Amino acid sequence: MKLSGIFPPITTPFHPDGSLALEALRSNVTMYNRTGIAGYVVTGSTGESVLLKRAESEQVWAAVAEAAASGKILIAGTGVDSTTETIDRTNRAAELGYHVALVKTPYYYKGQMLPELFAEHYTRVADAARIPILIYNVPQFTGVSVEAPLVARLAKHPNIMGIKESSGVVQRVGEIIVATPPQFQTLVGSATTFLASLVMGAVGGILAVADIFPAMCVELFEAARSSDMTRARELQYRLLEPTRTIVARLGIPAIKHAMDQQGFYGGPARAPFLPLTDAQKKEVETILAASARQVSVSA
Amino acid sequence: MKLSGIFPPITTPFHPDGSLALEALRSNVTMYNRTGIAGYVVTGSTGESVLLKRAESEQVWAAVAEAAASGKILIAGTGVDSTTETIDRTNRAAELGYHVALVKTPYYYKGQMLPELFAEHYTRVADAARIPILIYNVPQFTGVSVEAPLVARLAKHPNIMGIKESSGVVQRVGEIIVATPPQFQTLVGSATTFLASLVMGAVGGILAVADIFPAMCVELFEAARSSDMTRARELQYRLLEPTRTIVARLGIPAIKHAMDQQGFYGGPARAPFLPLTDAQKKEVETILAASARQVSVSA
Amino acid sequence: MKLSGIFPPITTPFHPDGSLALEALRSNVTMYNRTGIAGYVVTGSTGESVLLKRAESEQVWAAVAEAAASGKILIAGTGVDSTTETIDRTNRAAELGYHVALVKTPYYYKGQMLPELFAEHYTRVADAARIPILIYNVPQFTGVSVEAPLVARLAKHPNIMGIKESSGVVQRVGEIIVATPPQFQTLVGSATTFLASLVMGAVGGILAVADIFPAMCVELFEAARSSDMTRARELQYRLLEPTRTIVARLGIPAIKHAMDQQGFYGGPARAPFLPLTDAQKKEVETILAASARQVSVSA
Amino acid sequence: MKLSGIFPPITTPFHPDGSLALEALRSNVTMYNRTGIAGYVVTGSTGESVLLKRAESEQVWAAVAEAAASGKILIAGTGVDSTTETIDRTNRAAELGYHVALVKTPYYYKGQMLPELFAEHYTRVADAARIPILIYNVPQFTGVSVEAPLVARLAKHPNIMGIKESSGVVQRVGEIIVATPPQFQTLVGSATTFLASLVMGAVGGILAVADIFPAMCVELFEAARSSDMTRARELQYRLLEPTRTIVARLGIPAIKHAMDQQGFYGGPARAPFLPLTDAQKKEVETILAASARQVSVSA
Repeated sequence: MKLSGIFPPITTPFHPDGSLALEALRSNVTMYNRTGIAGYVVTGSTGESVLLKRAESEQVWAAVAEAAASGKILIAGTGVDSTTETIDRTNRAAELGYHVALVKTPYYYKGQMLPELFAEHYTRVADAARIPILIYNVPQFTGVSVEAPLVARLAKHPNIMGIKESSGVVQRVGEIIVATPPQFQTLVGSATTFLASLVMGAVGGILAVADIFPAMCVELFEAARSSDMTRARELQYRLLEPTRTIVARLGIPAIKHAMDQQGFYGGPARAPFLPLTDAQKKEVETILAASARQVSVSA
Repeated sequence: MKLSGIFPPITTPFHPDGSLALEALRSNVTMYNRTGIAGYVVTGSTGESVLLKRAESEQVWAAVAEAAASGKILIAGTGVDSTTETIDRTNRAAELGYHVALVKTPYYYKGQMLPELFAEHYTRVADAARIPILIYNVPQFTGVSVEAPLVARLAKHPNIMGIKESSGVVQRVGEIIVATPPQFQTLVGSATTFLASLVMGAVGGILAVADIFPAMCVELFEAARSSDMTRARELQYRLLEPTRTIVARLGIPAIKHAMDQQGFYGGPARAPFLPLTDAQKKEVETILAASARQVSVSA
Repeated sequence: MKLSGIFPPITTPFHPDGSLALEALRSNVTMYNRTGIAGYVVTGSTGESVLLKRAESEQVWAAVAEAAASGKILIAGTGVDSTTETIDRTNRAAELGYHVALVKTPYYYKGQMLPELFAEHYTRVADAARIPILIYNVPQFTGVSVEAPLVARLAKHPNIMGIKESSGVVQRVGEIIVATPPQFQTLVGSATTFLASLVMGAVGGILAVADIFPAMCVELFEAARSSDMTRARELQYRLLEPTRTIVARLGIPAIKHAMDQQGFYGGPARAPFLPLTDAQKKEVETILAASARQVSVSA
Repeated sequence: MKLSGIFPPITTPFHPDGSLALEALRSNVTMYNRTGIAGYVVTGSTGESVLLKRAESEQVWAAVAEAAASGKILIAGTGVDSTTETIDRTNRAAELGYHVALVKTPYYYKGQMLPELFAEHYTRVADAARIPILIYNVPQFTGVSVEAPLVARLAKHPNIMGIKESSGVVQRVGEIIVATPPQFQTLVGSATTFLASLVMGAVGGILAVADIFPAMCVELFEAARSSDMTRARELQYRLLEPTRTIVARLGIPAIKHAMDQQGFYGGPARAPFLPLTDAQKKEVETILAASARQVSVSA
């Protein structure tokens, strides 16, 4: 299975009362189906995974599996701190039709999160999982990181198919690619360094900004693949500001507000996220408008 | 309610197969009852809270509530990333007889974990909680921190009774104490700076090392309270090495091994924690022996 | 030689044109002579050492040596990145009558600043120096740190008499004191944790806030020494805000402005330091007034 | 003046007794003249600038200016903490024939190193300098950083021609390029992200690894410029390990040892740098041999 291309880590829609809005989720997926995305990452960090109950995660998995167009690769975020619980969630996602599990590093007890522990954790999960797994390295949320020598070691496991590297540290991306065999697939989670990572040999992106601009991300991927560096660079530049401000600084409430503006259902994020202030909404809208203008200029 | 004194954040015992060992938990509590501790912190970080299912947490709460001697203050760790789930757990702990809830800062989405968000989160939890709450600041695990100006603001809420400050940053402890009214209770979670924090005005400690050495921690607290600085300093010195090596570097598997040596039930930690190697076990035992020797010398 | 007590790391006065104001320096020293300080630290970090030419440092050393009252211990900041240059400066300070050299860790090439390198550097400096040296650990400026095991090793050198630990990390202060023999003298450079450090066994303080409030710092030291914890704590609380705002946030230009208000010559800091804005000056003055009020209330 | 291409930040050779080896320096430059490098960076971080006396820096500048082939651009590292001293050094380098000054951010007093201060510092230096200046951002050594909004502001100054961005943070490189006008030249100092930075629009590199492999760096630059991404990526991969191990981990003593192996004069680094151990020398030599094998395979 090739994980090449763009995978939006889709948001989890909620009703104003905080309950799951599964119909809106299905509707969003129907819209994404028509873009050139390669598949879906469901209940990833951008899916507010840590704010969902286990049962809710399963409802979300089922809804997306049902609404996704055939041919779209389904990736479920299943990693939690507990090894056993991670295995359990992974195999439940497999039952629901998911092709791949995205397994975040455990992270709470940082002092003990050493390479040996990660090696054992991933080996146990991969041994027990009925679907292949992706390592998920996201130090900006977890405060811990896996490095190339460990990834090289884990890449030997037949059920560990790749990594999602989200730090934006391009040196680490390069080191991982050099240290692993060609069939090991490196995807990145940082949109501001997506082109740089593709040039270094990454095969795809799981980009929160693709929740808002799926087509632009696909176009950037295609331009890089066809070595149209001028076009690729132009698109990469255009993604810098929305990623920095909407995704990184304002976060999921802003991604959802931007989705609302783009015709998707964004809706509210769960507490403790605060609703955007009016000034923040305006800031998001200004960035979206600037992006649209750039599109028309360049078209 | 005065939270003065020593509160061990007790470990959660497991059978070798990973299931809860509730009888061992009750037995540990019975032993702790006989020391001079002021109460219990249950399902805190040292209780492997992030590795427990919600239902398991409740079983643990019930078992400790049943086994604790009367007069011991019961504090439940109830904080998770979701505001709603935190409230729900807090009120369940209240039903089970807990007097106080220890509410960790939400932390996963670090970019948005700003003072305004923390203020809203804690206010909502405190408004809805049927028992008073303690703010729990533990940046070494969460990667985020609350600072004195925010604590001063939250201290005005009638249902926020204090804070557990676990960073070991004594300046922050002092700033919080100066910024809050006398009835707001500051406890600390760092055993290496416990005496320093008491001198700055902290009222007690929630110290993982007290799981191993409850009596020594109580004695240190009493020495500081009676201004016997020579004795207090000697005891503080003695706690440095076990805290640094057993608690901070080797973590919960080592705390549990030390408990096994001290006559409690320690048992295994849950995966992804690795079992201690033989060399690590020996290291723990050497530190325990050194501590015993110091006791006999000083007695 | 006992380094017990308070040592202000005095500022280096400049004329408005940026040249050394040596007469103002001598006048400041004459004023400090009348307080209970134990001695002077000259061309430390607060003395803008990194903004002085080598020849200017020597002029400053000479001026202070001339103006200091007899019995005051003279400590020269002589540490730079180069080992040879550090030795050379140390022995020049010795010629000018300095009793001790304060030798900052080298720090620019952080990747190589490992314990083995520090050990060799300090051993070579101590071997060649004609006066005893103090290790100077100040990670907030240098980005590197020495830890207790290395300090314990260096403490065996007959010409390394102690350490100035400026990080404010009280755990490290305690570990150093426990790891070194009684004659090794640990001074601290963090005023917000000064009382905590004294309780842990530190013998004195090199406190920038003592440039502004020498008498208050001396009184705190004496209160702690006589185990008057109530008075010591009160004075410690009072030093928190000036240290945080004037010393740490606004820095040397604010220390100098505060000195101007207190009757010393503060004057301008050298570029690249910016002059304080009017709002910042007002902020400094408000803090000074609050401190004076607290004094009168408690007197 | 176009700063496109490769600029080795050359080492400063010393005799075994630590004195300047100017004849070796001239000889190295003569060898570098024959490669395709665009010019020289002299007394940069890799030139052990912080271990040189001011007079030694000037001797080094003069020697390189004398030995450099005509047409090579001469860039002097002149930035120190003091604004006045930075100006003075910059204009001395101008007198000695240097075309550009590389001006490191001031950094010691980190708490005050805010954008407003940097703006004023660089404006004053650029106003007074007789040659154009490059901003030099190197947080791995300085612990401080300039960001795109400030760079955009400084780019308006007619005498600030560009930046050397050495952090390896590709997102920051992209943001700077997007925020500044086309004539503002962004060079990078991180060899592990050199290709990524070129793809983002950087015009050249000041790469310590080019002291060892000037031709390989030039070839990478040319491959990227001609959009030969396959060749560029292969060369980039090959630079990862020498940069990580020789440049970043082992540092200048290892760069010098590698230069010795490559036919240049490397010689000893100044104290506090330690000489390489035999094992470290072997490690360097193994990496060089691996690189040579890769070259022959690919030729």
